[in-house]
Amino acid sequence: MESNNKLILVCNDDGVKAPGITALIEVARKFGDVVVVAPDKPQSGMGHAITLNSTLRVNKVREEQGLEVYSCTGTPVDCVKLAVNEVLKRKPDLIVSGINHGSNASINIIYSGTMSAAIEGCLEGIPSVGFSLLDHSIDADFEASAHYAEKVIDQVFENSLPEGVCLNVNIPQLHKDDIMGIKVCRQANANWEEEFDERKDPSGARYYWLTGVFKNYDQGTDTDIWALENKFVSVVPVQYDLTSHKGLVGIKKWKFDV
Amino acid sequence: MESNNKLILVCNDDGVKAPGITALIEVARKFGDVVVVAPDKPQSGMGHAITLNSTLRVNKVREEQGLEVYSCTGTPVDCVKLAVNEVLKRKPDLIVSGINHGSNASINIIYSGTMSAAIEGCLEGIPSVGFSLLDHSIDADFEASAHYAEKVIDQVFENSLPEGVCLNVNIPQLHKDDIMGIKVCRQANANWEEEFDERKDPSGARYYWLTGVFKNYDQGTDTDIWALENKFVSVVPVQYDLTSHKGLVGIKKWKFDV
Repeated sequence: MESNNKLILVCNDDGVKAPGITALIEVARKFGDVVVVAPDKPQSGMGHAITLNSTLRVNKVREEQGLEVYSCTGTPVDCVKLAVNEVLKRKPDLIVSGINHGSNASINIIYSGTMSAAIEGCLEGIPSVGFSLLDHSIDADFEASAHYAEKVIDQVFENSLPEGVCLNVNIPQLHKDDIMGIKVCRQANANWEEEFDERKDPSGARYYWLTGVFKNYDQGTDTDIWALENKFVSVVPVQYDLTSHKGLVGIKKWKFDV
Repeated sequence: MESNNKLILVCNDDGVKAPGITALIEVARKFGDVVVVAPDKPQSGMGHAITLNSTLRVNKVREEQGLEVYSCTGTPVDCVKLAVNEVLKRKPDLIVSGINHGSNASINIIYSGTMSAAIEGCLEGIPSVGFSLLDHSIDADFEASAHYAEKVIDQVFENSLPEGVCLNVNIPQLHKDDIMGIKVCRQANANWEEEFDERKDPSGARYYWLTGVFKNYDQGTDTDIWALENKFVSVVPVQYDLTSHKGLVGIKKWKFDV
């Protein structure tokens, strides 16, 4: 794939065959040549996991004018690393990840393979955006998501992202005409209250399924959860510097060495 | 385990049998009753992964006065969730994770199961600290790490951590007497330049091993990398709010809806 077109890498965590990535590929193709490197199986909840103790494989599964699709045995972050270092002939102009089947708003970002792929792109110095639709179902309607993904990508190319910043974009489960627009906001302070589903296997031994209930503790009207509940698409600028600069001030006064 | 003692949960990513966790258990026991819930196999590089598509098991592998040890089939974050929700009778007073065999300074935090366990504890509202020694070897000497872990834990109980903040503590590979003390610092801006090791399997098909070289782009003298290179133990206050508040200002001015 040699051209002067923009080069866009597409990744996700639901796997190369998910409807969400198909929708995102179509959006990305409006902006340039597209290479997809995505997991060969669902990798939801993989966070920023990488494969250290086993091998990785990449296979081309589709090729046509302006599009190459590769399936990879690794995690979403492995996909980005392999794409940038082995599959692509040059650094991409943009990485888009998703469209995820299910919310990555608020604390969900930390568990999300889709967003970790975007964060990995960001820390490799590539403009990166993750997209998620608040609908887990396999036959989710991605029309509104595709519409807003195009708007966001357009603005990323128009304005450029600041260094060390990528975007976490979430789309409410609404018809395009019912969405109020886009809100740039902060990550809401929320988490999951676990409710492990305890069962016995046929031999009587105990095992668990991880389940939980999402709890929003944040009353702010400037958060992603507020935006989504009020029919907006949420856009959160995300960084990989995890330092609590506020925490630094107080902890520097601790007396470690007495 | 019923007492008025402090209750401390110990986790890691190298697995319940790793020498590093054995060293940390001994330190934790100086402060109270200890429950260990750690992976049954190495889980390095698992980041904040959780187990959504398969089941989890927990088995008690050791019990004595003031100590219970459980082995878990899940990721480090699964271990914390299961411990807090199913294994422990009450919320622990502290979670300590490690001592990791190898650095989790700078960008390593984002791939680290050890630090993700601490971050998970933090977002569940429990004071949490991750410890890592800059030595990957199985027979690493944890004497200095244990010494400094005790100092840090002491100060966590003395001062309390701010809400939403945990600590990433890294210890240089030096004799205790050669360490200059503790520096509270920020995460250095660094990353890994991947160097995939490409091989052919016996049938001739290509596969990869992920390898890389750590690159520090940060000239600051207030970073964890600087501290470690200058013989200090680094302590970075870490948050799970990934919002780039600096990025918010500019991106709010973008014209998404034209």
